[in-house]
Amino acid sequence: MANVNCNPNSASDTLTLDGIRDSLIRQEDSIVFSLIERARFPLNGKMYLHNHASIPGFSGSLVEFIVRETEAVQAKAGRYENPEENPFFPENLPRPLAHPHKYPKVLHPSGASINMNKAIWDFYFKKFLPLLVADGDDGNYAATAASDLACLQALSRRIHCGKYVAEVKFRDAPNEYEGPIRSQERDTLMKLLTFEAVEEQVKKRVEKKAMVFGQEVTLNNTSGGGKYKIDPSLASRLYDNWVMPLTKEVEVEYLLRRLE
Amino acid sequence: MANVNCNPNSASDTLTLDGIRDSLIRQEDSIVFSLIERARFPLNGKMYLHNHASIPGFSGSLVEFIVRETEAVQAKAGRYENPEENPFFPENLPRPLAHPHKYPKVLHPSGASINMNKAIWDFYFKKFLPLLVADGDDGNYAATAASDLACLQALSRRIHCGKYVAEVKFRDAPNEYEGPIRSQERDTLMKLLTFEAVEEQVKKRVEKKAMVFGQEVTLNNTSGGGKYKIDPSLASRLYDNWVMPLTKEVEVEYLLRRLE
Repeated sequence: MANVNCNPNSASDTLTLDGIRDSLIRQEDSIVFSLIERARFPLNGKMYLHNHASIPGFSGSLVEFIVRETEAVQAKAGRYENPEENPFFPENLPRPLAHPHKYPKVLHPSGASINMNKAIWDFYFKKFLPLLVADGDDGNYAATAASDLACLQALSRRIHCGKYVAEVKFRDAPNEYEGPIRSQERDTLMKLLTFEAVEEQVKKRVEKKAMVFGQEVTLNNTSGGGKYKIDPSLASRLYDNWVMPLTKEVEVEYLLRRLE
Repeated sequence: MANVNCNPNSASDTLTLDGIRDSLIRQEDSIVFSLIERARFPLNGKMYLHNHASIPGFSGSLVEFIVRETEAVQAKAGRYENPEENPFFPENLPRPLAHPHKYPKVLHPSGASINMNKAIWDFYFKKFLPLLVADGDDGNYAATAASDLACLQALSRRIHCGKYVAEVKFRDAPNEYEGPIRSQERDTLMKLLTFEAVEEQVKKRVEKKAMVFGQEVTLNNTSGGGKYKIDPSLASRLYDNWVMPLTKEVEVEYLLRRLE
């Protein structure tokens, strides 16, 4: 079983950059799977129109309604007790019904206030989704919204792992970060956290994953004749334009609060 | 975009065995993805114990609670208006809030009464899941239950497509089926619907899919050194022991009611 958590599973596990990297690489697979599954459905654009569904007592789009209500169910089961999980609609979430699991506390307490989900929601629906899926409406709104939520949650988890990346980088070289943190130099921190060669590798790898996981597997060959379920370059573009920049934004926000 | 529906998308699409087969093949990918995603988490066995979570006003396991509540949200969004979708907890499901999509009616009306989800629930949790995942408890109950639901829904959709398979086979050769239907010969129908060579191919293909989708993809190679995220033979066993037999049971049940 690959470790999917950026947060260590128990107090005896330590936070290491290698451990976090392994988790981020495993999460790439989840993200690619979720995109492929969303692309089974056409856009189903009516779901995203404000008040199109006219739900009694609710103002918003059908997808907002489904995500809010599903998050409420998952909150009751303790999803957001895990510091790696951030809700898209944090207002009025119910309390967990079961005894919550004790997650090791490795982050600085102010890290909990960082939630990039508004930005993730916006780029996903407004910019990325129209590139990913075909136009059209097949009526499968509930299944489509569940697929959207799977994409959003996988992206959100990956991007907020930036908190753990920042924490371990800070612990490994506190002297390097303390100066720019004290003077709140956002740009210097961003430069310290940027490794272009690594980012190029990530982009290439997710594109390759989209090809491997998105191919048509038959008993005769596995190449699938170059037909893919999603355009592989979209996975690379997703990481380039949004996933990696937002992860670094999480890292910078985290470091800016690290000495509070 | 691959068609994932066994039911035609519009009244102008006709029901063909080729169309259904394409859909079943595409659904294999969804099933394999969902298994790989469930295997990210350990068993988290407490979720499956009756009344372990002691939820006020609810009697059952935590996973039952989450599936019931999530199905209720999806029912409000119209999920079960689609004749391909069958709920695990059909009792007291809320009505759809939005205007339901008009799905073409291609099945015999009595097909709606066939719901194999109790059998799917039982084999999945009691027999299959312990083979799929590692022992242990990481506390991620909500995320684990959401993964279980994704597996259950993908399996249920595949198995209930048997209704469409039976309908198209009946339409293609009504004379062959009418005799055994009128005399309610379950075994004769089962024999007419069984093609061992095809079943062997399906088993081999899903095992190959588990290898391709479950490999560790790196920039240097795609073989992943023979390490897979789930045991590939489990996918084949899942189809052999449960998916294909239950699909055929759906087909037989459907045919037995076809002349009502």
